[in-house]
Amino acid sequence: MQEKGTISIHTENIFPIIKKFLYSDHEIFLRELTSNAVDATQKIKRLASLGEYKGELGDLTIDVSVDKKKKTITISDKGIGMTADEIKKYINQIAFSGATEFVEKYKDKGDEQQIIGHFGLGFYSAFMVAKQVEIQTLSYQEGAEPAAWLCDGNTEFEIKTSKKKERGTDIILHIADDSEEFLEEHRIQGILDKYSKFLPVPIRFGQKDRQVEDGEDKDGKKKWKTVKEDNIINNPEPLWAKSPSELKDEDYLEFYKELYPFSEEPLFWIHLNVDYPFNLTGILYFPKLKKDFEVQRNKIQLYSRQVFITDEVKDIVPDFLQLLHGVIDSPDIPLNVSRSYLQSDSNVKKINGYITKKVADKLGDLFKKDRPSYEQKWSDIGVFVKYGMISEEKFEEKAKDFTLVKNVEGKFFNIEEYKTEVATNQTNKDKSVVFLYTTDEEKQHSYLETAKKRSYDVLVLDGPVDSHFINHVEQKYEGVTLKRVDADVIDKLIDKDEKKESVLSDAEKEKVSAAFKKAIGDDKNNVTVEPMATDDMPVTITLPEFIRRMRDMQAQGGGGPMMFGEMPLNLAVSVNANHAFTRKIVEAESEEDQVALAKQAYDWALLSQGMLSGKNLTNFINRSVELAVK
Amino acid sequence: MQEKGTISIHTENIFPIIKKFLYSDHEIFLRELTSNAVDATQKIKRLASLGEYKGELGDLTIDVSVDKKKKTITISDKGIGMTADEIKKYINQIAFSGATEFVEKYKDKGDEQQIIGHFGLGFYSAFMVAKQVEIQTLSYQEGAEPAAWLCDGNTEFEIKTSKKKERGTDIILHIADDSEEFLEEHRIQGILDKYSKFLPVPIRFGQKDRQVEDGEDKDGKKKWKTVKEDNIINNPEPLWAKSPSELKDEDYLEFYKELYPFSEEPLFWIHLNVDYPFNLTGILYFPKLKKDFEVQRNKIQLYSRQVFITDEVKDIVPDFLQLLHGVIDSPDIPLNVSRSYLQSDSNVKKINGYITKKVADKLGDLFKKDRPSYEQKWSDIGVFVKYGMISEEKFEEKAKDFTLVKNVEGKFFNIEEYKTEVATNQTNKDKSVVFLYTTDEEKQHSYLETAKKRSYDVLVLDGPVDSHFINHVEQKYEGVTLKRVDADVIDKLIDKDEKKESVLSDAEKEKVSAAFKKAIGDDKNNVTVEPMATDDMPVTITLPEFIRRMRDMQAQGGGGPMMFGEMPLNLAVSVNANHAFTRKIVEAESEEDQVALAKQAYDWALLSQGMLSGKNLTNFINRSVELAVK
Repeated sequence: MQEKGTISIHTENIFPIIKKFLYSDHEIFLRELTSNAVDATQKIKRLASLGEYKGELGDLTIDVSVDKKKKTITISDKGIGMTADEIKKYINQIAFSGATEFVEKYKDKGDEQQIIGHFGLGFYSAFMVAKQVEIQTLSYQEGAEPAAWLCDGNTEFEIKTSKKKERGTDIILHIADDSEEFLEEHRIQGILDKYSKFLPVPIRFGQKDRQVEDGEDKDGKKKWKTVKEDNIINNPEPLWAKSPSELKDEDYLEFYKELYPFSEEPLFWIHLNVDYPFNLTGILYFPKLKKDFEVQRNKIQLYSRQVFITDEVKDIVPDFLQLLHGVIDSPDIPLNVSRSYLQSDSNVKKINGYITKKVADKLGDLFKKDRPSYEQKWSDIGVFVKYGMISEEKFEEKAKDFTLVKNVEGKFFNIEEYKTEVATNQTNKDKSVVFLYTTDEEKQHSYLETAKKRSYDVLVLDGPVDSHFINHVEQKYEGVTLKRVDADVIDKLIDKDEKKESVLSDAEKEKVSAAFKKAIGDDKNNVTVEPMATDDMPVTITLPEFIRRMRDMQAQGGGGPMMFGEMPLNLAVSVNANHAFTRKIVEAESEEDQVALAKQAYDWALLSQGMLSGKNLTNFINRSVELAVK
Repeated sequence: MQEKGTISIHTENIFPIIKKFLYSDHEIFLRELTSNAVDATQKIKRLASLGEYKGELGDLTIDVSVDKKKKTITISDKGIGMTADEIKKYINQIAFSGATEFVEKYKDKGDEQQIIGHFGLGFYSAFMVAKQVEIQTLSYQEGAEPAAWLCDGNTEFEIKTSKKKERGTDIILHIADDSEEFLEEHRIQGILDKYSKFLPVPIRFGQKDRQVEDGEDKDGKKKWKTVKEDNIINNPEPLWAKSPSELKDEDYLEFYKELYPFSEEPLFWIHLNVDYPFNLTGILYFPKLKKDFEVQRNKIQLYSRQVFITDEVKDIVPDFLQLLHGVIDSPDIPLNVSRSYLQSDSNVKKINGYITKKVADKLGDLFKKDRPSYEQKWSDIGVFVKYGMISEEKFEEKAKDFTLVKNVEGKFFNIEEYKTEVATNQTNKDKSVVFLYTTDEEKQHSYLETAKKRSYDVLVLDGPVDSHFINHVEQKYEGVTLKRVDADVIDKLIDKDEKKESVLSDAEKEKVSAAFKKAIGDDKNNVTVEPMATDDMPVTITLPEFIRRMRDMQAQGGGGPMMFGEMPLNLAVSVNANHAFTRKIVEAESEEDQVALAKQAYDWALLSQGMLSGKNLTNFINRSVELAVK
């Protein structure tokens, strides 16, 4: 036995599957049918320009209309139309993509990009929502007979003569009972707005009312009247398809409003335009950042030849730029395939790299040309830049210059500049330049005051990616260490190896230390008594930089079983041996009094760290009130 | 012109589309082929049980194997096999689902549910990863000839005689160059674990090593040796397919471990089992809640006849139960269709309702049978129950009894019980029972202390849905008002219309009020001087319940333009006319001293509210230190 043959598909079996599974959203039918209508219209324009069609082109507007009574939706174009033979060829044989043949034929003429027909099966998506589909069509060819095609959703069809007099094609959908939602005008308007807003041929969806001036009344007041006008749903020449050199700032701002009607103005934008090695156009806007990042995600819209595809651009735009807004249009991004496939697609990788580079160049430009204006925008763009710097090596190389840090006085520096700025006063005995920072100017206020007394500069690093940024800076810049202002007592934060004299004897220190240990009442904390400036606080509570970072990392790790248990909160309690209040403790008569005073000083220190709360805070306040009333 | 005809599909055109678009994940091919193998095996078992197959069934284990050198993956079953004619019928004509015919034939015998063959196109998914597909098969029918089928991914195929001697079918995939990732054993193991873990026929994927005891050595120590054993990847009889009456708690706990190897034990579970009006089995587990809800989402796995489909059950399981874990198996949930379609599917709605009811019944049972144990679990299940109560009316009806609140002493009540509990002491002049609550026992400690002095009870409502729960309780229970402990001074929180005498004259009150207004330094706050208990605080700062709720709602609203601008923080500053410290202010010599004292009292009040921070806190501490050193 040996036999050869051809796999065949029984249409009556595949047809229900195409109808049900091909698109996950039924509303897609309108994207497909308007795209087909645009396709047919582009073709007649093309034939006219080649001299192969010599008649009048006329008004080429595509019409979409809904008839609620008859329960139909009609899509009418004035494109090339079809003869009965062409219907048989293109429609009756599913997936014989007419576009392929057309592109093949006119390929050498250089504009195959104009042909949408990306989805051979598009027409049949009509059956996702229609129980009967009707075609009325007249071909552009001289002497062609109008033809009609009727099919009620099984595989039987009928071809008849049509009464159609104008060139073009009407697709009439007789909507199925379970799809009557699509007979609502606002639903159709919504779908057109979503998918067809930038198709390259005007699309009309009925008419709409507009108020226009109508002279003046007797008192000289303006009069108004309502006029009907065509409801053109699309902008056939979207900004991204134009040449950047023709465009002004106003154009970009206006287009932004068109895309996001209720948003604040964007900060700036980047016009993408590349032909090789892939085809991509688009405009990316940098928005003003909102507190809640999530609401800003998924605002970039992906188009393929002006047909909306999706606003999930997760794998096409680098992660750090997903908060940007705007539009990307590329016929080279594979659609409808798996995510893992997308990630490994070489075009996608190149696009990713291209976008990263363009963004870096734009930011570099802005920084060089007008640094004050760049600094003003930093609070909005800083997150992008820092996140990009951490996550994309190629971006980092370019971003070094224009990645800024801001100090508590509101001055901006890049890392190299800042290193130079503070090197003189803030280099420690190990020759490391110490960058001090605060994550909360309000909460760490008393520590900031202490740093100010030493004329130390302090950076504000309170952004969502700053904890990673801090690690990144330490890794990339040799001889730089970052410490939070409350990570140690001031003279150890930047340890210059300057010894201070203690006014207390060792025995007195011992006494003070004992009093504090009793006052604190547990042994987790590490009490030291050491000489400091007389105007430093009597007690300072600090959490070593290393321990805090470990705890932060653990906290960010989220759920799951803790690998090493929770990091203990090992606070360092540093008592100022040279403070007058410490002298008072030494001189107190009873041990009881010593402990009470130590408790008070310890509570002040806890207060400074925002750590006095609950019962301890209530007790502290009650004690203070009692003392004051005495 | 009139003509009728049949739509046809040119296989060579549709084939690439099936290969590319049918499934978004290429790895699905293995789900499809193992499902088909199971299908063929179930059929032979069925025929044997009906007496239509009289031979030996033998070992029916399905084998999956990878040959890295030959670059093949083979799936072998010992099912019914196919004759050359059957290949022509079932394979060469795509989407002619063999299962349909089989089910049709044996329908009356009551077990059509056993047949998987849900996906008519499944076999062809092989071409997503293979450049050539080969079938070697021998039918169960007496005297059948073994047959082979070969196809290299276009639509041409070849049928030959095969040398296969055993009943069943081998599908041999010659893997395409761009799919060689599937030749990695760990990849195949991963896909089998994901999709085929509970298929109803044993599936073997090669062998694995196991350590077994091997007697003792001279010193009496155990010896071990490595043995090879079959690597059966699935559990053909998963727990959910068994009858609940056969199962013990250990079985459920063990199965939970099988599903989520590294998770803590669940609290309890619900075995779902329904035949009519839809078919659904499954087990839902209540997990211990983690802080980060997001990591717990999407843990419910959806199966269709033991084939894994997805862990996105968004539209099938009610929103408030999406943090549950477990398995749902139903052939009645439409797969692969749009989300909007799913939401309106009547089966899905019924399933949703059924799950809600089962969960409510289970919780009601637990509550009635063992209230102490239920209360112990409340910290984990409270979020589910409260969220369900707010969002699902049908759940709410049942949940009233077992929705609990906890007071600061750790006692639990349902709402009715609690109303009775506090009615005597906490009914205000308007006959409304006031439930006091705290959202943070630590931060609101001093206010809790004040409430305790009046023997008022306070609820702890610090959960993620409690702000909605509070509104819900007020709406549903007449005569109940909820107030946070710091929403007013204690005698106005529950206003019993008991007048207190003031020790200050009106002129003195005026003086005090003026001092505070100067001390506070802005006019946003509302200062009143009123008689309170002498042991109440000298000053209390409160934020009216209504204003706080409005602010919380705004904060939760997230981004977007603020509709009414930010709500102002109108704090109420209530000075206790009867406190000794207030007397001290009245008696202070200079206005300057009065203001200084008022400032101190105001700072204490701010401290109690956790509102003294930054510069003001630093100043307060410095002032306190200076005073103490004097």
